[in-house]
Amino acid sequence: MKLNDTIVALATPSGAGAISIIRVSGPEVISIVAPVFKAKSGKKLEDQPSHTLHLGNIIDAERIIDEVLVSVFRAPKSYTGEETIEISCHGSPYIQQEIIQLMIRKGCRSAEAGEFTLRAFLNGKMDLSQAEAVADLISSENQASHQMAIQQMRGGFSNEIQRLRQELLDFASLIELELDFAEEDVEFANRDQFKELISRIQQVLKRLIDSFATGNVLKNGIPVAIVGEPNVGKSTLLNSLLNEERAIVSEIAGTTRDTIEDEMAIGGVGFRFIDTAGIRETQDIVESIGIKRTFEKISQAQVVLYLSPLTPKGGIDDAVLIEIEKIKNRFPQKPLLIVINKIDLLNESEIREIKNKLNGIEGANLLLLSAKTGSGVEELKDKLLDFVNTGALRNNNTIVTNSRHYNALLSALEEINKVQDGLNANLSGDLLAIDIRQALHHFGEITGEITNDDLLGNIFTNFCIGK
Amino acid sequence: MKLNDTIVALATPSGAGAISIIRVSGPEVISIVAPVFKAKSGKKLEDQPSHTLHLGNIIDAERIIDEVLVSVFRAPKSYTGEETIEISCHGSPYIQQEIIQLMIRKGCRSAEAGEFTLRAFLNGKMDLSQAEAVADLISSENQASHQMAIQQMRGGFSNEIQRLRQELLDFASLIELELDFAEEDVEFANRDQFKELISRIQQVLKRLIDSFATGNVLKNGIPVAIVGEPNVGKSTLLNSLLNEERAIVSEIAGTTRDTIEDEMAIGGVGFRFIDTAGIRETQDIVESIGIKRTFEKISQAQVVLYLSPLTPKGGIDDAVLIEIEKIKNRFPQKPLLIVINKIDLLNESEIREIKNKLNGIEGANLLLLSAKTGSGVEELKDKLLDFVNTGALRNNNTIVTNSRHYNALLSALEEINKVQDGLNANLSGDLLAIDIRQALHHFGEITGEITNDDLLGNIFTNFCIGK
Repeated sequence: MKLNDTIVALATPSGAGAISIIRVSGPEVISIVAPVFKAKSGKKLEDQPSHTLHLGNIIDAERIIDEVLVSVFRAPKSYTGEETIEISCHGSPYIQQEIIQLMIRKGCRSAEAGEFTLRAFLNGKMDLSQAEAVADLISSENQASHQMAIQQMRGGFSNEIQRLRQELLDFASLIELELDFAEEDVEFANRDQFKELISRIQQVLKRLIDSFATGNVLKNGIPVAIVGEPNVGKSTLLNSLLNEERAIVSEIAGTTRDTIEDEMAIGGVGFRFIDTAGIRETQDIVESIGIKRTFEKISQAQVVLYLSPLTPKGGIDDAVLIEIEKIKNRFPQKPLLIVINKIDLLNESEIREIKNKLNGIEGANLLLLSAKTGSGVEELKDKLLDFVNTGALRNNNTIVTNSRHYNALLSALEEINKVQDGLNANLSGDLLAIDIRQALHHFGEITGEITNDDLLGNIFTNFCIGK
Repeated sequence: MKLNDTIVALATPSGAGAISIIRVSGPEVISIVAPVFKAKSGKKLEDQPSHTLHLGNIIDAERIIDEVLVSVFRAPKSYTGEETIEISCHGSPYIQQEIIQLMIRKGCRSAEAGEFTLRAFLNGKMDLSQAEAVADLISSENQASHQMAIQQMRGGFSNEIQRLRQELLDFASLIELELDFAEEDVEFANRDQFKELISRIQQVLKRLIDSFATGNVLKNGIPVAIVGEPNVGKSTLLNSLLNEERAIVSEIAGTTRDTIEDEMAIGGVGFRFIDTAGIRETQDIVESIGIKRTFEKISQAQVVLYLSPLTPKGGIDDAVLIEIEKIKNRFPQKPLLIVINKIDLLNESEIREIKNKLNGIEGANLLLLSAKTGSGVEELKDKLLDFVNTGALRNNNTIVTNSRHYNALLSALEEINKVQDGLNANLSGDLLAIDIRQALHHFGEITGEITNDDLLGNIFTNFCIGK
């Protein structure tokens, strides 16, 4: 990993705008930028303290490239921990390229994806899980994923892992000390306290591992399957939730043959709505494939919306009850919300009859709405939020969102379980030490104390250039 | 024009990137941002001097929205001349929106297009022609248009106008002074000196007005018509110039029926290449329309490339000579470059014969090349540059690029001519003063000393938001 050169990249999105920022970082940054920057004040860039801003011109020989603002960050008080300069220029792609090319001619190298953050990690400005959170933060699209990324970036997760690791390390030291005095048969590490610690670590690990289900789903959006007969208004419902015309709405039954996914944030939580072909019995082969796919989608969803059709007389057909039972039998644990659409077309006695019929179904959550007028749509949103476990989010608990961390936690738990077994079997310290070291290794993987170039390469290539 | 509120906008291009900048400017900026910004250092934002950078969190109630860098610019040492803060946040569209929404909740208004630059103008940080150059600078795509925008933004043009205006104003004052002493029949303003000044102003105005032809063409790209028989390799030539496969290359004669335009920078100057359908005699109605269009395009072009076909025996057909004559007769002043393509297929004696035949044509610039192998393409680029008058650009002369300025200069010249006529006719001072004032008015329009809300609205709505 070469760190002793100076790198340059555009840090703002490409394209034209009012302002663009070109980031330059590395040991030579001042000696590269100073000769091509002429401050209005006449001050020399090399004499400027950290965290100051300077107006001036970027000049290539006699030619003025742009009037810019230069931000000076002196090592280690910068994002990367290195000497850093940010050049805030006019947002013309031509100017961006001229300045970047000038920097390269003067001795910079084009930064690779994520290289500024990689340097921040290698210089100890953040640990690996914090660095990963930076990328999550940039790609966060709603409050929940944003909050989890911020929490992780600010070190919430790292602190929890570090605490466990330190306690385990302290005990490991005592046990390894015993090995030095093996002939004297002393016991520095109190076995009962150790058992208690191991059990505590197990609990924390289990909680973190369990949080991944929530974290992953919150990060990627909660999948909700919208199921129902064709032509019952699924697409219209989806549209009224999305307030956009994404799905094709048509009067021809069976229009929605492929599943359409769309995302929206409700109460700060991302939902992925999956419009399915419904489960009406049919002879049509294409429709049959659609029904099979509907069941697959239900199995992947966290919540099912069953959108019930109405008879021409404004009632509920018995076939509907049978279908609802089918879904409940197949997915007994899955939250099911029965939605009656088009209530704008019904009178009060019809509505009463529908309620009587459907309230009899066990575990059914009934909701009456009109996708057309929008009445009941807000209530639907509230119900959807009820199904989501946002407790951990509200309580600011650490939530694991990264599958790399999840796997490391699983491996750590496995080793901790081995340590527990060893303790219960009164294994000797040298054997215990091996498993403890393995557990410590997996903790270290998360925060980046244990790492290698391949792993870093994998993580940082997913970053954008300039970060 | 409301200036006493505080405005906010995203200043970097929209979309995800490493960094985004949110610009806030106006009298309340510190009192709006300070309560939602918590510096890591614990320092209070309101106590910070201009041109300093501060790391901290943007906080909405208890919730951290992002870790940001805040740049403080104290009035009048800012772009707008007002108190200004730039918030450099993580480049997530979600975060951008959260911060902008927070600012609006705390009392900011969404900035209109160009409103930061409008405020800079209204606060006397730049004149109107400089403000207009900011938009030109952002949209500059090559060295020539960039250089003209930079020159104008740095006040080169304004200085020239100001100088003329001041001299004219000095004389106007003397003449108006004469009016106060009308009964005494004194002459404070020396008429000979005044005539000399008027003649000098005329010269400068004419030079500036003439520069518009160059400036406009350099700003928008120099139009070059590529003319020739179908299937002669125009599209291939265009592609070898562009190094891209933009035009459709086909073996079927007459493929290129519509004109295709493409732009590229050669030696820092923008060229617009216009591929035409050629001028071959034809019965095909569609082709005939194409030929008519070819002549239209030639009349709009600054340079004509005539791409000559070869006979199957590798020579030049007499019909080609006739066509070249046709073009020369119709456009005698237009630079014409005869290009023989596919010389990779010819032997030396064939090439010699072609040269003999074509060198006889008066004013013909002959160029042999192979679009296929690329030989001669660089020479073609050099020839094209020769046709462009870049002298003014090289000498850093003021070049007028803006049609608003051009029209104001034309009007000013008209008034100056009237003044001259008046002087020659020994008109009385009060009559001279009217025309002088009109000329001063047109000078003032350029720099913005004379302005109105409609004009400002027209100019600044063409800016991007955040600038």
